[in-house]
Amino acid sequence: MPRPDGRTPNQLRPVRISRNWLRHAEGSALIEFGETRVLCAATVEEGVPRWRRGTGEGWVTAEYAMLPRATDTRGTRESVKGRIGGRTHEISRLIGRSLRAVVDFKAMGEHTITLDCDVLQADGGTRTAAITGAYVALVDAVRYLRRQRNLKTNPLTGSVAAVSVGIIQGQPRLDLNYLEDSVAQTDMNVVVTGAGEFIEVQGTAESAPFDRKLLDSLLDLAVAGCAELTEIQKKALTE
Amino acid sequence: MPRPDGRTPNQLRPVRISRNWLRHAEGSALIEFGETRVLCAATVEEGVPRWRRGTGEGWVTAEYAMLPRATDTRGTRESVKGRIGGRTHEISRLIGRSLRAVVDFKAMGEHTITLDCDVLQADGGTRTAAITGAYVALVDAVRYLRRQRNLKTNPLTGSVAAVSVGIIQGQPRLDLNYLEDSVAQTDMNVVVTGAGEFIEVQGTAESAPFDRKLLDSLLDLAVAGCAELTEIQKKALTE
Amino acid sequence: MPRPDGRTPNQLRPVRISRNWLRHAEGSALIEFGETRVLCAATVEEGVPRWRRGTGEGWVTAEYAMLPRATDTRGTRESVKGRIGGRTHEISRLIGRSLRAVVDFKAMGEHTITLDCDVLQADGGTRTAAITGAYVALVDAVRYLRRQRNLKTNPLTGSVAAVSVGIIQGQPRLDLNYLEDSVAQTDMNVVVTGAGEFIEVQGTAESAPFDRKLLDSLLDLAVAGCAELTEIQKKALTE
Amino acid sequence: MPRPDGRTPNQLRPVRISRNWLRHAEGSALIEFGETRVLCAATVEEGVPRWRRGTGEGWVTAEYAMLPRATDTRGTRESVKGRIGGRTHEISRLIGRSLRAVVDFKAMGEHTITLDCDVLQADGGTRTAAITGAYVALVDAVRYLRRQRNLKTNPLTGSVAAVSVGIIQGQPRLDLNYLEDSVAQTDMNVVVTGAGEFIEVQGTAESAPFDRKLLDSLLDLAVAGCAELTEIQKKALTE
Amino acid sequence: MPRPDGRTPNQLRPVRISRNWLRHAEGSALIEFGETRVLCAATVEEGVPRWRRGTGEGWVTAEYAMLPRATDTRGTRESVKGRIGGRTHEISRLIGRSLRAVVDFKAMGEHTITLDCDVLQADGGTRTAAITGAYVALVDAVRYLRRQRNLKTNPLTGSVAAVSVGIIQGQPRLDLNYLEDSVAQTDMNVVVTGAGEFIEVQGTAESAPFDRKLLDSLLDLAVAGCAELTEIQKKALTE
Amino acid sequence: MPRPDGRTPNQLRPVRISRNWLRHAEGSALIEFGETRVLCAATVEEGVPRWRRGTGEGWVTAEYAMLPRATDTRGTRESVKGRIGGRTHEISRLIGRSLRAVVDFKAMGEHTITLDCDVLQADGGTRTAAITGAYVALVDAVRYLRRQRNLKTNPLTGSVAAVSVGIIQGQPRLDLNYLEDSVAQTDMNVVVTGAGEFIEVQGTAESAPFDRKLLDSLLDLAVAGCAELTEIQKKALTE
Repeated sequence: MPRPDGRTPNQLRPVRISRNWLRHAEGSALIEFGETRVLCAATVEEGVPRWRRGTGEGWVTAEYAMLPRATDTRGTRESVKGRIGGRTHEISRLIGRSLRAVVDFKAMGEHTITLDCDVLQADGGTRTAAITGAYVALVDAVRYLRRQRNLKTNPLTGSVAAVSVGIIQGQPRLDLNYLEDSVAQTDMNVVVTGAGEFIEVQGTAESAPFDRKLLDSLLDLAVAGCAELTEIQKKALTE
Repeated sequence: MPRPDGRTPNQLRPVRISRNWLRHAEGSALIEFGETRVLCAATVEEGVPRWRRGTGEGWVTAEYAMLPRATDTRGTRESVKGRIGGRTHEISRLIGRSLRAVVDFKAMGEHTITLDCDVLQADGGTRTAAITGAYVALVDAVRYLRRQRNLKTNPLTGSVAAVSVGIIQGQPRLDLNYLEDSVAQTDMNVVVTGAGEFIEVQGTAESAPFDRKLLDSLLDLAVAGCAELTEIQKKALTE
Repeated sequence: MPRPDGRTPNQLRPVRISRNWLRHAEGSALIEFGETRVLCAATVEEGVPRWRRGTGEGWVTAEYAMLPRATDTRGTRESVKGRIGGRTHEISRLIGRSLRAVVDFKAMGEHTITLDCDVLQADGGTRTAAITGAYVALVDAVRYLRRQRNLKTNPLTGSVAAVSVGIIQGQPRLDLNYLEDSVAQTDMNVVVTGAGEFIEVQGTAESAPFDRKLLDSLLDLAVAGCAELTEIQKKALTE
Repeated sequence: MPRPDGRTPNQLRPVRISRNWLRHAEGSALIEFGETRVLCAATVEEGVPRWRRGTGEGWVTAEYAMLPRATDTRGTRESVKGRIGGRTHEISRLIGRSLRAVVDFKAMGEHTITLDCDVLQADGGTRTAAITGAYVALVDAVRYLRRQRNLKTNPLTGSVAAVSVGIIQGQPRLDLNYLEDSVAQTDMNVVVTGAGEFIEVQGTAESAPFDRKLLDSLLDLAVAGCAELTEIQKKALTE
Repeated sequence: MPRPDGRTPNQLRPVRISRNWLRHAEGSALIEFGETRVLCAATVEEGVPRWRRGTGEGWVTAEYAMLPRATDTRGTRESVKGRIGGRTHEISRLIGRSLRAVVDFKAMGEHTITLDCDVLQADGGTRTAAITGAYVALVDAVRYLRRQRNLKTNPLTGSVAAVSVGIIQGQPRLDLNYLEDSVAQTDMNVVVTGAGEFIEVQGTAESAPFDRKLLDSLLDLAVAGCAELTEIQKKALTE
Repeated sequence: MPRPDGRTPNQLRPVRISRNWLRHAEGSALIEFGETRVLCAATVEEGVPRWRRGTGEGWVTAEYAMLPRATDTRGTRESVKGRIGGRTHEISRLIGRSLRAVVDFKAMGEHTITLDCDVLQADGGTRTAAITGAYVALVDAVRYLRRQRNLKTNPLTGSVAAVSVGIIQGQPRLDLNYLEDSVAQTDMNVVVTGAGEFIEVQGTAESAPFDRKLLDSLLDLAVAGCAELTEIQKKALTE
């Protein structure tokens, strides 16, 4: 089975980052991984959650959601259901953790930055696109905060990018689209810093358990893919 | 007080309609009224709500929502609150009613078309932009349905556009932006067919009750504004 | 189609207002528009919602609800569903807005008056009966507040009444009952001050869009009906 | 401490039952125990809950609620809270159980009768007033069902009334009002059939545990009070 | 019908109390009434609910719940349903009331003790086992509080035990298991102090109303059963 | 920093598995990893979720929850909050996925097995203990299903165990308890089959990103730990 869009196994989909797509947000980016399109907005607010007050440290959190018709068939809104589903919770938590790994909370002071990642269109890899785009929005929000509060130290200690990898018919592939994702035997999401270190490694055997050798090849592929994404982020941030 | 963006009292903001902005939806449009930006997606599904089954007639409904950072300050997601607010309910119902007024349900057969109107950025007039954009998405969804089901009769009996009007310091103005909306004494949303007839008239005295003369001048302004919007819709639909 | 209860087109149903129907509330009225029966209770509380604190101004808000067997077939309680429906939200907001239009919040001081409008029996026009009855309860609550707090200025700047009008087989009719409401082509709720000015105009094309001439005739009918209701309110308030 | 309304210890408050207070319900009664006022509506519907289908037997259930300003200070609506409180649940279940004790479900066929008991004004004893009034509404609903379905056997095997009793300063008293209820050491609600047998006995030591002798005196008082209520029900049902 | 486990009518099931079953709780007990197994945990926290603040008095409350597979068929979790059922509410309230009857709140100071009673396995009598076990956990929590806060007066004024009794084929029986409970004509839960006085008496006619004589025989049985439980509690508390 | 309980870095805590701890469940196990205690219950039900009907295949799912006083400070019940938290959702999904990786759904027929994992006491590693214990309960439930339905093929294709590993002061450690977990720089949960292959690898940089070498050492530790757990499971299952 060749890749549906003709890519080589270690090739990313075309990635586009439109910075400052929103007018009100302190940072924002519309990120596209091929047909996957996620709107990332960073909001800077004074104060921190209750359990963190008085520590002098800031906080970074994230909320992920999907528009009802981002997908092939329409999904019921979580606001209509009256509850947030497990998948949404899981991804929101992953995005928040990933970004917090490169933040020096002391340097932020007691401010909260919230990253809203709303999937406008989904074609696989929404969570990794969200992390990669949210980092760009975060950088702009932190720049805003530094100007506003005259912060001396940069609260960001590194950059973050994320990509999915998977095994299809025994072959490791980078950045799966929806079609590939739904047939992959093993699926892995990897979050890597600009320095090439791991923030999060989440591998799941979708149909068959996988061995160490396969795991290693997936990690290699992911690290290389994230390095490319880091370059794209850098370019977007200097425009 | 002159208009913040230099418009004349009876001038619309620049309106842009990007049709088929989404890949999966049967119809879609990203509509912009100046800085207000609403993504409208139309979904065609077989079947109708329970209370309508067996009638042979279709149904059209709408859901309106706002992304958390569409506005100047971040709002809590309704999915997180676990309930849909009164304003959301009210606008969703208005959009649905407005579109249903130009639909011949018998001609649709037992299908449901759902219009999702998600505000990506808000600067006043989100509900009127939503109605105007949703109509465009609805047309494409109906075309899809006609092709798919080989429908002989056109289920659409007319077109729909909507605009807000208001009184600011005694002066009637067309298509208020957020700044104007927040200081208007009277605020009115008017939904008009392409033939110039009313579907919905909702006028509210925000601070002082208004008399019949003022009401009449606002209706005149709205009808003229909707005629312009109708032309813009037509152009977008023939592209 | 003659009117089911033999009224002329511009005739109200018998209206009865029983003031102080409740013992605990600072103001209350059981209002009847024919078979429609709404219990309106006004509660005076110290303090205002968070966003209004420290302004020195008061607040007026309303909650509308229906008993499960107010209608022909039993409805599920919203408390059992765990959520408030769109219609309830919409009407609660309408009642609150309508009453606020005749309140001088500065003269109230930081107090909140809540109007609870509970429909005990429904036969069309529940929202207009609720507004008309809530005004009476509000007057008594404001009188109580003035006595209690020794307020010099009257916080009420006018009176409010509301009525529904509609087109049935081309004929404009005043104060529709349920049977008429369900067959009306156009349905309009109009809220008018004692001085004959508009607070709210909500017209909806139920089946066919309506033109300006029809709109004008409905407005005429509504203004005349509200003038009658104003007289009935006055009489009830002087008993 | 004499009784606040001058009653003797074993005297009921004035009880009034207004039958058929509602137009749509198959049975209804506005019942008053002094200042306590409960509107009871009985709804007959075809079918039974899922777990009872196919048994050929009917079902009787109840829902109790309080209007927000039934009490001295306004309570938040349970629909607004999004959940039903423990007290509401407990009383709804009690009313349902009490009525089911005199119903022959086989004779009903697969129908459900729902008793809605809405407290319009509260002054102690709302649950016992609700049970006593709900029985009257149930009788009319059962009569309706018998006529409609031509039932040969009477589904009602007896009548039901309920009253509260309590100990105040060592003295047993019948039918406590709110003031008495809030100072009682022991509080008991007793549900009794027209034949003088117990359906439900719920005694609670509010401040001090009570002994067998006191329990016995309370039961005597309650049985006598229910006998009086049974007579009042009978009279109302023959009017 | 003999008892399914061969007991005499006035015989308790084997009762086992494992004190301090939990490591973190200030008091805890795993209590078994035959196959019924309830884990009771007492938590001591500073402060009291809002409505009690500043009184200098403490508070005791309880929450009851059942694991999904405590019963013969799996039940849906209340957290998944998003709401707590009526039965859960009712039992939680009963446990809290029962324990509060033996607490001197002034002697506690402004502390709250919460009793969590989680049914791990259910075979009838879960609420009475919960009350009996919760008392043991409460004693240990109170001992902890006295040591911690150096309280001079014992906040406990007595002990509490509870048991169910019921009529099966005319025969009064003590401590029904699930099988017996489901066929009992009358079912009663009785909460008694160590001194033999009543805290709560809840009798329900499940199928047929019951007379005074039967009620008396059930009360006798329950009082004797609770005396036995009191001895078992004492023994557990001195180990 | 030595291990708080004196273990060597690659040593598990004492593991105890009490099979058939529950009477009603088709399979059950109380598993202890040191002070962590999780009750795992497997329920076999006919039928599968709607989206799987008619496929002839079975389903396995899991629900994880914590008793309120499983932890050092009491947590609010999710049933009381009215919603399930993100952490609960995430772990429930992990347990379900992990077990499904060793199930042949075709061999099961259209049955659902639900694994309820309730944490009675928490001291770190609750999710890995839950997976390890749930596997044991699953085996017994599958044996029950095979007997009941006379299934020829074993629906289980392997065994599953899980363990946490982490880096503390640069040192990789196996099976962290709560104290260690809260100071670990990197935390990883690894799910491994009895054959030593991976089902799930979830590594998170809690404070500092980690490199490939560290990742490799953690994986080695986890694989060895799971092999030991596999032996303990086998022993428990042959008793």
